[in-house]
Amino acid sequence: MPEDVSLATVAARAGVSVSTVSRIVNGEMRRASPATVARVLEAVEAVGYRPNPVGRALKRGQSQLVAMIAANLDNPAMATIASSTEAALREAGYVMVLCDTHDRPELQDEYLEAMRAQMVSGYVLVAAVPSPGLSELSASRAPAVFVNRRNPGGSGAFVGIDDRAAGATVADYFIDRGRRALAVVFPRLGSSASRDRASGFLARLRERGWADEAIIQAAGDGRSHLQIGYDAGSRIFVGSDAPDAILSVSDQIAYGLNRRALECGLKIPDDCELVSIDGTPLNQWVAPWLKSIEIPYALYGAEIVAGLQLIWRGAPFGERLLPCKFG
Amino acid sequence: MPEDVSLATVAARAGVSVSTVSRIVNGEMRRASPATVARVLEAVEAVGYRPNPVGRALKRGQSQLVAMIAANLDNPAMATIASSTEAALREAGYVMVLCDTHDRPELQDEYLEAMRAQMVSGYVLVAAVPSPGLSELSASRAPAVFVNRRNPGGSGAFVGIDDRAAGATVADYFIDRGRRALAVVFPRLGSSASRDRASGFLARLRERGWADEAIIQAAGDGRSHLQIGYDAGSRIFVGSDAPDAILSVSDQIAYGLNRRALECGLKIPDDCELVSIDGTPLNQWVAPWLKSIEIPYALYGAEIVAGLQLIWRGAPFGERLLPCKFG
Repeated sequence: MPEDVSLATVAARAGVSVSTVSRIVNGEMRRASPATVARVLEAVEAVGYRPNPVGRALKRGQSQLVAMIAANLDNPAMATIASSTEAALREAGYVMVLCDTHDRPELQDEYLEAMRAQMVSGYVLVAAVPSPGLSELSASRAPAVFVNRRNPGGSGAFVGIDDRAAGATVADYFIDRGRRALAVVFPRLGSSASRDRASGFLARLRERGWADEAIIQAAGDGRSHLQIGYDAGSRIFVGSDAPDAILSVSDQIAYGLNRRALECGLKIPDDCELVSIDGTPLNQWVAPWLKSIEIPYALYGAEIVAGLQLIWRGAPFGERLLPCKFG
Repeated sequence: MPEDVSLATVAARAGVSVSTVSRIVNGEMRRASPATVARVLEAVEAVGYRPNPVGRALKRGQSQLVAMIAANLDNPAMATIASSTEAALREAGYVMVLCDTHDRPELQDEYLEAMRAQMVSGYVLVAAVPSPGLSELSASRAPAVFVNRRNPGGSGAFVGIDDRAAGATVADYFIDRGRRALAVVFPRLGSSASRDRASGFLARLRERGWADEAIIQAAGDGRSHLQIGYDAGSRIFVGSDAPDAILSVSDQIAYGLNRRALECGLKIPDDCELVSIDGTPLNQWVAPWLKSIEIPYALYGAEIVAGLQLIWRGAPFGERLLPCKFG
């Protein structure tokens, strides 16, 4: 569009007022006669006028963008959530932009601020960490849905699974298969999701008669689940106390454990059974030895967008826990 | 910031004109006396004025955002490029937003338009496909760097590797190891990168005496490299003409081939050697059987940002082909 073409240019060509052009260009056609509408639309074409969405956003106070602020997009689970949400948002007429916080509060804050400046219509916070910017966002009541990890600051719309129940399911599975030497591997700096999966597992074992001391609990340091699994494997697989069944709270931890097992000359599941909670599509291609509680990541998008739409309409939206598949 | 605070509020409080406030708030302080600057800054604090970056963007014609428009972020190679670019942009004072086109021209166009509307300062197009919007972008001379795949429309700054040479390297490797029955697997709807890797391989074999008909060329349909590899494996591994060495133009195609090989009772590399071009970090965790030409994806970010900075300064930037590692 040429630099000097504006609403005024269109108005002059069509012989109407600027406000008439503005209303018609924004889709409010009821106050104008069909002839006027036609004249304005023809003038728009003729002068090559293109409405400036940023200008409209300024007026309306929001844009057609929704920001997904997620941690570690190289994790297949995250990528699937991003993909399904992007498709669902597009269906609803929005464009999604993605920002990777790498689990770091200062990055999360930078993106929250940048997205606020772009006047996004809503936020999807996947694996959010506590940060000053996040507290501000909650306080400002901006439309936001938390995914996988609940709002560290307290309340807020949430989409995820019943993490404790998932851990408990694996406990029952191991017990019912006669496994005796059990272990669970999780990140020490874990999210509420990781922690709940591990505690659900331990709580169920306790209910069914296991003593906590009898269960190997390997907490790994750092942010990389692949490395956490590998390092835990170094401790677990070496020595006489090796377990016969391990719960890994994510697929990536399981990948790391498996690599270490192979290096120790062990085979999963022959020498030790490994169950993870995730079940991303990549497993069938690269990890057929892995049994998983399948989290329906492909369904998250629709739930997240349904949540945003409720929030935009001013209706309440609490939590939506999706069902997992196992077996 | 309260709804009714604007430049005018600050101006009234400081006893200066709105344009004076605007200049000072945007960092142009040379025309004002130190006393005036101090008064304005105090007024900004006192009334809680927060400059609207979108407003500033409108004036300056650009924002602090750079858009990465990429295909298939669930591909570990893409995720690594995104990650390294995001870090390099942040170093340079920009915020990156990510959009996944899923290789679809209509999605690519939607994101190009949405990002133009947000007045991003530049575009990083990873694995771009031909589309009307892309032609418009090229014609508009917006700052853009193409990554992995060159601009389908012709010229443009490019960061990638010498794809033909990579293919040729694998050809030499197979020949020098005495492999006789060779194959190459690539996507039929492939990008210039995929096609060049396969043609470089075939050209080198031709140079060294192989007849084209002697080489199995398995082109897979569809967009999923995992599926392409798997389907090619169904054709290649069944029957008496099985190859003893295969070039896979990406890691994901190799993952698919390997899964099919396992299902056919074959082991890579014992029964058939497989070399891919990619070498993403995930391989060491889930595919230790895979030998790869390692593309230095982690270095792409710095090269891409260096390219954008040259373009922003009006300097030319042609192509940057990064060196690969093999062996």
